[in-house]
Amino acid sequence: MEEFDLNRGSFTLPGEAGYEELTLHLAEKWGADVIRDSDGTSLSPEILQAGYGIYSTVCVIRDHNAWIREHPTCRQQSFLMAGPVTAESEELRIDLLEQFFREQFEVNDSPESMAYWQVFDRTTEEEVPVEQWSYDRETGSVCIKGCTPWHQYSVSFLAYRIWEEISMYNHTTNSWDKEHLMQLDPRYPEAAEYLRRWMRSWCEAHPQTTVVRFTSLFYNFVWIWGAEEIFRNLYTDWGSYDFTVSPLALRLFEQEYGYALCAEDFIHQGKLQVTHMPPTDHKKDWMAFVHRFVTGFAHELVGIVHEFGKKAYVFYDDSWVGMEPYGRHFKDIGFDGLIKCVFSGFEVRLCAGVPNVTHELRLHPYLFPVGLEGKPSFAPGGDPAAETLRYWIHIRRALLQQCVDRLGLGGYLHLTIGFDDFNDTIWDMLREFRLIKKLHAEGGPLKLRSRVAVLHTWGRLRSWTLSGHFHETYRHALIHLNEALSGLPVDVDFISFDDVKRVDLSKYQLIINAGREGDAWSGGSAWQDTEVVSRLTAWAAEGGILLGVGEPSATEGYTYRFRMAPVLGVDLDRGERICHGKRPFTEKPDDRMKAFTDRLDWEGKPELYLTDASTEVYKAKDGRIVFSEHPFGKGCGIYLSDFSWSPEGISLLRALLQEAECRRFGKVDMPESGNPCTEAVYYPASHCMAVSNLTEQAQRTVVRYGGKSKEIELKPSDCRYIEW
Amino acid sequence: MEEFDLNRGSFTLPGEAGYEELTLHLAEKWGADVIRDSDGTSLSPEILQAGYGIYSTVCVIRDHNAWIREHPTCRQQSFLMAGPVTAESEELRIDLLEQFFREQFEVNDSPESMAYWQVFDRTTEEEVPVEQWSYDRETGSVCIKGCTPWHQYSVSFLAYRIWEEISMYNHTTNSWDKEHLMQLDPRYPEAAEYLRRWMRSWCEAHPQTTVVRFTSLFYNFVWIWGAEEIFRNLYTDWGSYDFTVSPLALRLFEQEYGYALCAEDFIHQGKLQVTHMPPTDHKKDWMAFVHRFVTGFAHELVGIVHEFGKKAYVFYDDSWVGMEPYGRHFKDIGFDGLIKCVFSGFEVRLCAGVPNVTHELRLHPYLFPVGLEGKPSFAPGGDPAAETLRYWIHIRRALLQQCVDRLGLGGYLHLTIGFDDFNDTIWDMLREFRLIKKLHAEGGPLKLRSRVAVLHTWGRLRSWTLSGHFHETYRHALIHLNEALSGLPVDVDFISFDDVKRVDLSKYQLIINAGREGDAWSGGSAWQDTEVVSRLTAWAAEGGILLGVGEPSATEGYTYRFRMAPVLGVDLDRGERICHGKRPFTEKPDDRMKAFTDRLDWEGKPELYLTDASTEVYKAKDGRIVFSEHPFGKGCGIYLSDFSWSPEGISLLRALLQEAECRRFGKVDMPESGNPCTEAVYYPASHCMAVSNLTEQAQRTVVRYGGKSKEIELKPSDCRYIEW
Repeated sequence: MEEFDLNRGSFTLPGEAGYEELTLHLAEKWGADVIRDSDGTSLSPEILQAGYGIYSTVCVIRDHNAWIREHPTCRQQSFLMAGPVTAESEELRIDLLEQFFREQFEVNDSPESMAYWQVFDRTTEEEVPVEQWSYDRETGSVCIKGCTPWHQYSVSFLAYRIWEEISMYNHTTNSWDKEHLMQLDPRYPEAAEYLRRWMRSWCEAHPQTTVVRFTSLFYNFVWIWGAEEIFRNLYTDWGSYDFTVSPLALRLFEQEYGYALCAEDFIHQGKLQVTHMPPTDHKKDWMAFVHRFVTGFAHELVGIVHEFGKKAYVFYDDSWVGMEPYGRHFKDIGFDGLIKCVFSGFEVRLCAGVPNVTHELRLHPYLFPVGLEGKPSFAPGGDPAAETLRYWIHIRRALLQQCVDRLGLGGYLHLTIGFDDFNDTIWDMLREFRLIKKLHAEGGPLKLRSRVAVLHTWGRLRSWTLSGHFHETYRHALIHLNEALSGLPVDVDFISFDDVKRVDLSKYQLIINAGREGDAWSGGSAWQDTEVVSRLTAWAAEGGILLGVGEPSATEGYTYRFRMAPVLGVDLDRGERICHGKRPFTEKPDDRMKAFTDRLDWEGKPELYLTDASTEVYKAKDGRIVFSEHPFGKGCGIYLSDFSWSPEGISLLRALLQEAECRRFGKVDMPESGNPCTEAVYYPASHCMAVSNLTEQAQRTVVRYGGKSKEIELKPSDCRYIEW
Repeated sequence: MEEFDLNRGSFTLPGEAGYEELTLHLAEKWGADVIRDSDGTSLSPEILQAGYGIYSTVCVIRDHNAWIREHPTCRQQSFLMAGPVTAESEELRIDLLEQFFREQFEVNDSPESMAYWQVFDRTTEEEVPVEQWSYDRETGSVCIKGCTPWHQYSVSFLAYRIWEEISMYNHTTNSWDKEHLMQLDPRYPEAAEYLRRWMRSWCEAHPQTTVVRFTSLFYNFVWIWGAEEIFRNLYTDWGSYDFTVSPLALRLFEQEYGYALCAEDFIHQGKLQVTHMPPTDHKKDWMAFVHRFVTGFAHELVGIVHEFGKKAYVFYDDSWVGMEPYGRHFKDIGFDGLIKCVFSGFEVRLCAGVPNVTHELRLHPYLFPVGLEGKPSFAPGGDPAAETLRYWIHIRRALLQQCVDRLGLGGYLHLTIGFDDFNDTIWDMLREFRLIKKLHAEGGPLKLRSRVAVLHTWGRLRSWTLSGHFHETYRHALIHLNEALSGLPVDVDFISFDDVKRVDLSKYQLIINAGREGDAWSGGSAWQDTEVVSRLTAWAAEGGILLGVGEPSATEGYTYRFRMAPVLGVDLDRGERICHGKRPFTEKPDDRMKAFTDRLDWEGKPELYLTDASTEVYKAKDGRIVFSEHPFGKGCGIYLSDFSWSPEGISLLRALLQEAECRRFGKVDMPESGNPCTEAVYYPASHCMAVSNLTEQAQRTVVRYGGKSKEIELKPSDCRYIEW
């Protein structure tokens, strides 16, 4: 069994040449076993030879500007849409890059690119025949003839991306002033061959490196910038595949799939293909196609790394697209480790849930003056210690349920100078992490026997995450649910609508569907499939609890807008029932949950109505239903108008899980902490009760389990580990 | 020219047998020229012979219980849907009337009725074959075999309506205790023949009657009551045709149209066919079919009345369905007058806009203990004088623009005893009405030269109204707009999407589209017609102002959800653009409108975003756009997130009208009243300025017109008529 020294190991420190003394001092203080470089820092021989494991960051597709300049057709590309622009006469000229950041894009006007360009009349949504438009290289604009005056027109075209987006972001946010980096596209054989050679020579040149840390692979998440400084962010989606396109890839796709994609498959009336919306079949094919390419070529590079006796870890970040840790071929790459930067508990689970790799978390704050949300971290006005703890509350919750192997930091180590409380906080946190790791190694936490499924369009592929960090997706109730689930004592599967038809649902005691009508999380037209509805209905009748949040199972064209209304006992009226009387109800707080439902502050929907006299409304706000239950056969439907991560939200979800457990197994035998701002997790093999504080204020609670009860005081953000 | 005695004429008084002295006293005081009976009152010979015109109320289809009992198949019917009910096994029994008020309905289980019954699996939305279900007369239930357990099933069936709905309502609201009246269906030849005879003998028996007041025709608006006392109102829609159905009518329809309607055409998955939603083509055919029958048979009855030298007026109320004053065949009936009960200005215009009839308004409050909204009128706690003035503010606004011929009251005259202030208020009001009528006769008000179109699915057929009174439809922005328009100095047309393609739009300076996505007022799938979009876009480019309110022109499947976004400069994101950056904006109050936009309190929509840099946001609330303008060619698009009847709302609309006038005609020459709580209307031929107070508080304003300005004080609810 692994030895657990609470002061040492399982930690990756960012070193910094020029600050050798500081590097080795903090490595010692924090008990690092690995030192890494970061984007913008390097390690000096003094550090490399100090006896630590060495992670070396490689960003595969950038830092090759010299080669790229000689092979400009190997730069990465994207479809862009210029317009829509209104025609005022029969002729219209559209400047292709007018609305875009010209430092990011360059029109690809090669014949093989232009074969994919499309001009649309966006008023009729009809394509304008090629004969009616021409491209003027001089002005970079398309001239359309035979327009219908006052219709709108757009041009979809291929553009090279001439500034790697993360480099572009860092220049802007952190005032960098270096050469603009470009990214090459390994889809082009000469680029792939170049990268193979480069990988090999890199390994030769870095004998001290024990782990090559791929940051990350080839294709960045989409990030399209605009021309106007006040309106730079035109489009950004962590999970979208817009930046994987090229004439070559499109041609190969056509050969393989027997049909051709066109610009409109990506442009989609200017809406692009948002991860939060159900994908088209064409998009699904494209994603699978890119996934196979990315994992295939990554496998080659990892093979080279392995040849040199080094390990290959991947930092699951910016250029992750196509890698898909929950995709079918991720395992084929052969990565030894997966490193995830985390703010939240769901990101811990996202990392920890990928099998057969070493799991490492890159904590926040990053050692940068300014954080991802644009606020100061290691800069005047910043409080990195408090920031660390704020994230740690979320991360620890998840770690208490499922642990990872390592933690790490990143950035400019010298920025920590003068932030002694930060240094002490990290020290405390690392000791706590090693203790949690020990508790898991000894047997892990007591869990409910119940199993939960979160049902959405993407299923397993988007386990835990939606598209990016919490602060990028906070408007979706599901990310709040995932975050709450990440620290609850229950196993969770993420299942798709196909899974509903394929797997034995009886293993789930609770199935969650949370989203807004038409989005990927609610499911949109997937609910038009009656077999999905029938199987879930039968499952609920047999004892399952269906939890619907927001606009669950909503689609058009059926008796109820919520297809699962017969189970949920509520439905949504978008106007087609405005002349129907709505059943009056009386709010009857459920005694079991009253303590925290009283404090829920979620808004109800004015259009929600009861479909059944037996639906009980436990919570309403301003006369609108927030929380209801409807008995259905041996099971029931629970409706929540919204969900947000909060002590009350977590308590409510825990109560529902316990209700599910009780229905299936007759009783629940789990520790209870009386104060919703705290949580108790029990480790039977270690006889240890972890009681954690979910808030930045001191809390007091009474924990009950196994016939014992104990009053416990908790300092802000603290967790106590008590023999039990 | 008509003589105008401000104290006499143009007024219909409700008389009451047993209160002859009161009747004649009030007839004298109020200057009545006509005395009428009401539902529940009669006129004695003393009243009939006092020298007044006599209106006699006839309710054609009720008060024939004896005949109906002998001809029960001639009772009126409706489709109803029992369920949906969840099947727990393969067999399911559904009690047809379980959820309905059994005093209102009786199952019609005749073979010709049952031929139209349909059983549906509402989970799959598939019809269950007739072989799988049977009707059990004993229990009044349908037994379905071969069900899929946990699917939901419904039975659509025909029911006789056995209690005329207005009689049912009056029993309940006003504690009547009389025999339940039934209504006969003149579609059945024996019922029609009976009614012809009855009409003739009625005329013979009422020699003193000068005007037969039809209350109203044959088919009531739909009003379905439920079994539970706390949940009586299952469905009510003033404009829907559910109560016009019968096996005979369905058969005749099939013969005429060459296709058969089925129960589902009416039941529509239990949603029924709400007036607020766009109708199906089948529903449109059915409405036309019923309209032709109703107007045809009404023409016969009116012919009989005319034979007796009497006039025939119709009270456009409860049993109005199929009559359609704005329908193609209304004029064919030959009514001499149209009487409309009114709370609001839009109802005045609705009445006044029907050509070639005498127009009379039946004022509120009705002389009843309790009003339509369920509050006391002529009862303790009631203040009928204040109530009268509250409605009068709205009614007068409209009358100042377009007058009617007569006013009237209805109900139990004796209830006025003790309400002297009411009696005085009516006296004042009648004098004012006669003055307004005089101003119109002398030439009428000064109006804008501009013309406005309100664009929705129903077009002219639903001119001014949506479906019922204001308090029944207040959740729709359009009724607030119609109410505001009813008192503004402009001509208004209500046009359909077909009209957009057919008529010359250049006659309109302002076109309004106001509703929520998918409803009849916004237009729903009508916006999928590109010709509609193109024509409106071209019209705006040529100088038109498009006013979009709420979710104007919203439909799915196009670049923008608002099809008119290119003109409006704003669009709605329902999630498909959640990853798109949204253009930031700064609120820039428009100087011209600042005074009242500051006070607008409408909510913005979180999903609304600017599509164009040139869109100006004049008003936002909590960062959400409430009021914006987007230049487009020579015209523009105005967006309002909502609209409610208020002094500020009216002022805003007036300002937009003046803007439209100015764009077209270069200048506006209209009176202005500086205080938005007041309005000034000028009568050039009479040299009279009417300055009215829109509130129940005293107001002061400065009116400017024709180089003159004058400060004016107004008492609460008052209007002053000033020589100018």
